[in-house]
Formats: sequence, C-alpha cells, structure tokens
Amino acid sequence: LKTSKSKATKTAELRKEKVLTLLQNHGLTMYNDLDQGKFPQFSIPSRSVSNIVYDKKLRQYILGNASALRSSKNMSQLRSFTQLAWLAFFANKLIREGKTSTLRDIYYSSQAFAIDFEDQPESDNIIVDLEAILTSAREEFHIFPEERSSVFGDLTIEYTVPGYEGKRMNLSDHPDGYLIGPSLSSAELVDTSAELVIAIEKGGLFTRFVEEKVHKKFKAIIVDTAGQAPRSTRYFLRRLNGELGLPVVILADGDVYGEHIAMVIKSGSANAAHLRELTVPDAKWLGVWATDIEKYKLPTIPMTESDIKRIYELQKDPRYQEGNWKTQLEVFLKLKRKAELEAFSKYGLTNITDKYLPEKLELAKSL
Amino acid sequence: LKTSKSKATKTAELRKEKVLTLLQNHGLTMYNDLDQGKFPQFSIPSRSVSNIVYDKKLRQYILGNASALRSSKNMSQLRSFTQLAWLAFFANKLIREGKTSTLRDIYYSSQAFAIDFEDQPESDNIIVDLEAILTSAREEFHIFPEERSSVFGDLTIEYTVPGYEGKRMNLSDHPDGYLIGPSLSSAELVDTSAELVIAIEKGGLFTRFVEEKVHKKFKAIIVDTAGQAPRSTRYFLRRLNGELGLPVVILADGDVYGEHIAMVIKSGSANAAHLRELTVPDAKWLGVWATDIEKYKLPTIPMTESDIKRIYELQKDPRYQEGNWKTQLEVFLKLKRKAELEAFSKYGLTNITDKYLPEKLELAKSL
Repeated sequence: LKTSKSKATKTAELRKEKVLTLLQNHGLTMYNDLDQGKFPQFSIPSRSVSNIVYDKKLRQYILGNASALRSSKNMSQLRSFTQLAWLAFFANKLIREGKTSTLRDIYYSSQAFAIDFEDQPESDNIIVDLEAILTSAREEFHIFPEERSSVFGDLTIEYTVPGYEGKRMNLSDHPDGYLIGPSLSSAELVDTSAELVIAIEKGGLFTRFVEEKVHKKFKAIIVDTAGQAPRSTRYFLRRLNGELGLPVVILADGDVYGEHIAMVIKSGSANAAHLRELTVPDAKWLGVWATDIEKYKLPTIPMTESDIKRIYELQKDPRYQEGNWKTQLEVFLKLKRKAELEAFSKYGLTNITDKYLPEKLELAKSL
Repeated sequence: LKTSKSKATKTAELRKEKVLTLLQNHGLTMYNDLDQGKFPQFSIPSRSVSNIVYDKKLRQYILGNASALRSSKNMSQLRSFTQLAWLAFFANKLIREGKTSTLRDIYYSSQAFAIDFEDQPESDNIIVDLEAILTSAREEFHIFPEERSSVFGDLTIEYTVPGYEGKRMNLSDHPDGYLIGPSLSSAELVDTSAELVIAIEKGGLFTRFVEEKVHKKFKAIIVDTAGQAPRSTRYFLRRLNGELGLPVVILADGDVYGEHIAMVIKSGSANAAHLRELTVPDAKWLGVWATDIEKYKLPTIPMTESDIKRIYELQKDPRYQEGNWKTQLEVFLKLKRKAELEAFSKYGLTNITDKYLPEKLELAKSL
C-alpha cells in the first residue's frame, strides 16, 4: 500500500497552491474593500510599449514600474474590472476541478455567466492582464494553447494530472514523439540519460532525427517546435534546461523567421514581458545561419518583400544589436536569399545529421 | 529466445513487399523495353477533371479509364518520365532503408541526383503520379505529411518500424494524445476495448474529451483531426474502422468547412480519386449541424463571403445532392451564421460531453 505522496505529486501540489493562494489573496482584498465601503480595484502592471524595457541582466524584456488601475469606481473601467474578476473566479474553478481550457473556450465560457466580451481579442487581453497580475503564465491557471509541439528522447516523466498521478512514462517509447500538452507540461521530470536538448523547427526533420538515432548518437532530447514554438513548448524547454541542467540548442530554417524562432526561445517576446518562465537565456542558435548558406552550398529561395521588411524591423530590436545575431541579419540582407532545413537533403537524406549537426555542435562549444 | 516473427511484423513485411514488388515490376518492364530496343514509358491513369467520376457503389470519387503516357521517346514527356523514374528509384530506396521523407524533402533530395524540379508543386505532382501508377498512398512508399494529428484511447498497438519491431504501446498511457506519424501509421492494431471512434476537429476539445473521460464513458477512441484531417489520419481512421470493426463518428465546427471535414473523412476528395484507402464510407457526421444552432441555442458568428461562396461550390458536388448533407447546406445558407464546437461552453465546460454528445450518439443509431 502506497501511503506517502511522491515528490512529483508534492511539487505539482505546491505549484497549484501557489497560484490558488495568489487568486485567493486578490479575492480577499476585494471582500475587505467592500467591507470597508471602498470600491474594489485591480492594479495591473502596464503593458504599454513605453513600459516594456529590455533587461540586459535577465536577458529578456521585462515590464517597468508603471501600472494601470481597473477600478469598479470608474465607469469606464467597470467593464474590464468585472471581466477580470470573473476570469480570476473561473481560473480558480478550473484549477480546483482539474479541468483545462483554451483561449477560444474562455471567450465562450464567459457567456455562461452573462459576462460580455465583444470578441475573442477582448477576452485574450483580459487573460494577459491576469497573467501580469499573478506573474504566472496562463498555463498555470489551466488555459492552454491549441497548438501542440512534440518531444522525443530518453526522459522519464511522472504525471500529476487527475487520474494519472504517480504514473510514469519514458518519452522514447513512441517514435512519432509525445505531444507537449497539459499533462506533459505539468509532469515531473524524473530522470534522463540525455546531455543535450535539440529544438528543431520542423516535423519532417524531427522524424528524420529520430530515425537517424540522433537521440542516441548525441545523447539528446529532441523537441519539434512546429514553427514558432508555442508558449507551452518554451516553458517545457526552460524546464529541461533549468531542472535537468541540459543545454538547449536550436535549429531552424535559414531565414529571418528561423533566426527569430531561436531568439524567442532564448529570450522571449515583448508580448510576454510580464512573465519570467518562458525563456532559456543560455540557449544557443546553431543554424541555419545566413553564413551557412555559402559555407554548405545550400540551395536557396529568393526572399520576399515581407522577409526583407522583417529584417529591417528586427534590426531595431535591442537584442539584434551585436554579435552573431547582428551579423547574420546583415548577411541575410546582403544575400536576399534563404535556405530551409530540408535544403541539406541535396547532399543526401542524412547529410544534416551526419555532417552539419556534429560540426555545428562542435562549433557551439565556443559560442 | 523469440524465434518466430509476430503477426504484426509479418503483416508489415507483406505490405512492404507488395509496394516493392510493384516498383520492381515497373523497373523490370523498363529494362525489358531497353533490351528490346524500345523506348521505356509509364502509363498513368489520367487525373484530369473529365476522368474523375463519383462512384455511388464505392461511395467515393474514382478515376475513369483514360490514361496518359510518359514516354522517353517523346521530347515533351522526357522530363516528367525521368522525374518519375527517379522518384520510383528513390521510393524503393526509402522503403529498403527504412527511412521516411516529406513532400518538401523530396523536392530537395532530387537535387542530390541532379534531377531538376522547377519547384515543389512540380515534384508534388510527380509523387501523385507515382501514387496513381501504384494505386498506393505515398505513405506506403514512406513520404509522410508534416502535419500530425493525434489519438487517445484504449488501443494496444505493435510497432513495425526499425528498432521498435515487436514493441507494444497502449494509446491511453499519455493523456495529451499520441501523434499519428509514420510509426503509428504502420503499426499493427492489436487489441482494444473500444466500441466507437470519435473524430473531433479541435485540439482543445480533444483535451476536454480526455479530461471528461469520454474514452471510458462512451468506450471510445478519440482522434483529434486538427482541422481538415491529414491523409495519414484518414488512413488511420479507415484502419480503425476496417480492421477493428469500429464505427466512426465525426464532430466538427458548425459551418461549411466543418461539414466538409466530415465528408472528406467519409468519402475522400477528388484530389485523391486515384486511391482507395483514404475513406471511411460508413462514417457518420454527428455535428455541429446547421439545425443544431437553433436547437441548442448556440452563440453564432456571421458567415464571411468566402463561407457563402464555399456553400455554393459544395452544392454542385454530387455528394451533397441528397439527405442530411443537402439539408444542412441549405440551412447554413439560410442562417448565414455559423457556430464553433467551443460554443457549447456557453452552457458550461462539460455541456458538450454531458449533453450534446450522448444525444447525438443516440440519434446516430437511426442515421
């Protein structure tokens, strides 16, 4: 008879209690205000552009000290105050009942309570407000993205979701990969023989890497980001890095979007400046660099107008002001051509795993 | 010591041998032609609109008897003849080496052999030619889509991919769901306690269904089609239906695209008229019907111009000429409004699983 709770279950309960306590405190403050004849209100860290600053030490965007009020006293704020109070109530309910939701679902669920959102962008915005107030990602209060990316490798996890508590799974058992959904996001990372995490942008290449046993040859956990990594995937990468001490390297298409996929995994986005748990500051962008295009004689595609426009935009971003990030943008702009990860197949299906990957991993040691 | 091969491995080998034999026969014919001083050629079932007909008995689109030649004798056909011969060679190589590829990857891989494709649409088209010649889906010769949908439920499978032969997995062990990639597509379906397959359009709802234990309450295997079901998913649904004898029901958004998602799972698409293994003729579309919008008082969104245009298009499709398929298109056109699966959350998160699903399953018995 198993009488004591496992470490995984305890950790999950602590994380859950933390968010519930935060929510409860806000609820208590509201009741106290009412008892004292005051209009209840929320103070929300301001997310206006002027309050988003790049923090060099944390190596990510953060919010400054400005904050905004949502007061029930102010007629123009009453609507958003009520929406926010409802969302806090609903988040509390989701966590306690062990249920999950999506952004879209929240928009409709509000209607069950006669809470009026004009459209989904309005409810999405209130969800970000609650994240900013709690400094907790929405996944912590059970609102998950629709998009799921996946993972494969020798990693034993222990579930903490209802009905699966204490059950373990090794993420090398299903060679098509494991979806990074609510259950995996909240699971305890128990044990691994891996020494490295490789995040890769495309499903086809992910499968190639599994087939070519990259997980064994390079002792790696492989993560398919399926394009721009969803937040739950960035959170998972951060956990692999922080909790297991595994270095994270990133492979994306050789274009401005690929470079930015790597940057967002590494240092987050301005949109999520109110959060701290979505970055991997020591992650390394392995490629495909603009300079790899000539070096590896890759077949290329001409850039579109919007590719070029995007380069000019990123050149204004403080994170692209120095080092390799800056250099590669300049070379992309000079070449005006881009190369996909699949381009290596010109030299054989396994060229990318046999030649490019080991060369880049060797190089990464000095990055 | 295990000396005899399992049934799963044998089935997989037979399937593999079948495709290899087909490829080999085409190769032999080509050599024989050369030996006899003849120009080798391929005869390809024509996929022109005039040769695509709806077969009422098979309940899907099929190709008529017209065929097209790709002869090495004809200068204008030499290019596509060579591309096709290369693809057959490359497919043979992929199967023998146990490797997989994607459409994009094939385009680049051709360059390793100095085979010239103008762009990916040209190589995609040659891949369909090979499918038509072999009457085999490209997955059979190891070309898989990038998109992956997922599955969850009490189903034990046995892998047949290299390195995993004979290993078994129960698809209820990972509550985020199992990706339907190359390994799952080629696995043997060993055992299930399920009596039903529910295909659902959206990841968020898939997770809701797992959380609400739909797999237990309704003895169901749940498949997330993630929008329009990728071909590998349609192929998997067909196998669940054909090999395990499980009825398949479909839930999609209440709009013209949702109705067509159900139709394509049931009877395929004109684009795949050259194939037989991508349909589930007895699959039932459970909803969301246009008539459900009023019946369940669902919150709606106005249709766009392109929604309405799409209805007019489908009204010309022979499959929408009668019964519920026809009726629902008409009601959509009358309402000019649509409702998403998430809309049920207006009546509580579990309204869709507690009320709508059982009512629709009951109704389905008489459909």
